[in-house]
Amino acid sequence: MTEHYFEDYSVGQTFRGGPLPALTAEQIKRFAAEYDPQPFHLDEEAAKKTFFAGLAASGWHTAALTMRMFVDSDVKPVGGYVGAGGEELRWPRPTRPGDVLRIEIQILELRPSRSRPEVGIVKAQITTLNQRDEIVQVTRPVMLVPRRE
Amino acid sequence: MTEHYFEDYSVGQTFRGGPLPALTAEQIKRFAAEYDPQPFHLDEEAAKKTFFAGLAASGWHTAALTMRMFVDSDVKPVGGYVGAGGEELRWPRPTRPGDVLRIEIQILELRPSRSRPEVGIVKAQITTLNQRDEIVQVTRPVMLVPRRE
Repeated sequence: MTEHYFEDYSVGQTFRGGPLPALTAEQIKRFAAEYDPQPFHLDEEAAKKTFFAGLAASGWHTAALTMRMFVDSDVKPVGGYVGAGGEELRWPRPTRPGDVLRIEIQILELRPSRSRPEVGIVKAQITTLNQRDEIVQVTRPVMLVPRRE
Repeated sequence: MTEHYFEDYSVGQTFRGGPLPALTAEQIKRFAAEYDPQPFHLDEEAAKKTFFAGLAASGWHTAALTMRMFVDSDVKPVGGYVGAGGEELRWPRPTRPGDVLRIEIQILELRPSRSRPEVGIVKAQITTLNQRDEIVQVTRPVMLVPRRE
């Protein structure tokens, strides 16, 4: 797989990632037990009486699964996916057991770094969708990517 | 522990969370193997030659650990921590093996939901720090919290 320098990307360029295997209730509960132990992420029965009205994945689980698909995508910056953070993170609806997630990636902005001439700053949008093409997450990562010279 | 309604919070109010036990290299590699399999998160030797110049936790691992401390904090909204997303996510420096993380939380903004009169929108800032009081993450979660009436 070809790795890309900053100069290889263009604004508006798109990539895809995933799909992952269907997410299981067990995976949802295992992540939640460690990082987000709340009833609606841990127990089907308890979840029925909550805001989510049923078992839902932690938003941070959806974010971690999105990162996995991003790393496995063809975006492939030279030196790896080095994130400085993101400008947006939205979960319009929860990820549920059985969901098959995939991502759509769009390059939004490219600019040289002022402080570090050897890298460029790549802003992208990653939209995470389920098997019904419903959006479960939108994030706008900011990455540092090496320049050719 | 008292649970809080929307009306119980005030702008400028602060909370603390953590610290967690020191993060191990094993934990960093285990998270990365599943969600962010890149050399600088998986292998000490390979990491030396990368941007991070040594093993570093995935930013999403730092985010997940931050969520854990947030859930265990005294913020405790009625009905749980229901996040709609966040307005910012920054990783000014990586989390390293041995780091002892804690969080500082500040309530930034409170407003009723226009579309759902039974909930209010709480915007907060969570700053995640290591044992040297260096900032490893800043995030601004947006939560839905039930109103008293």
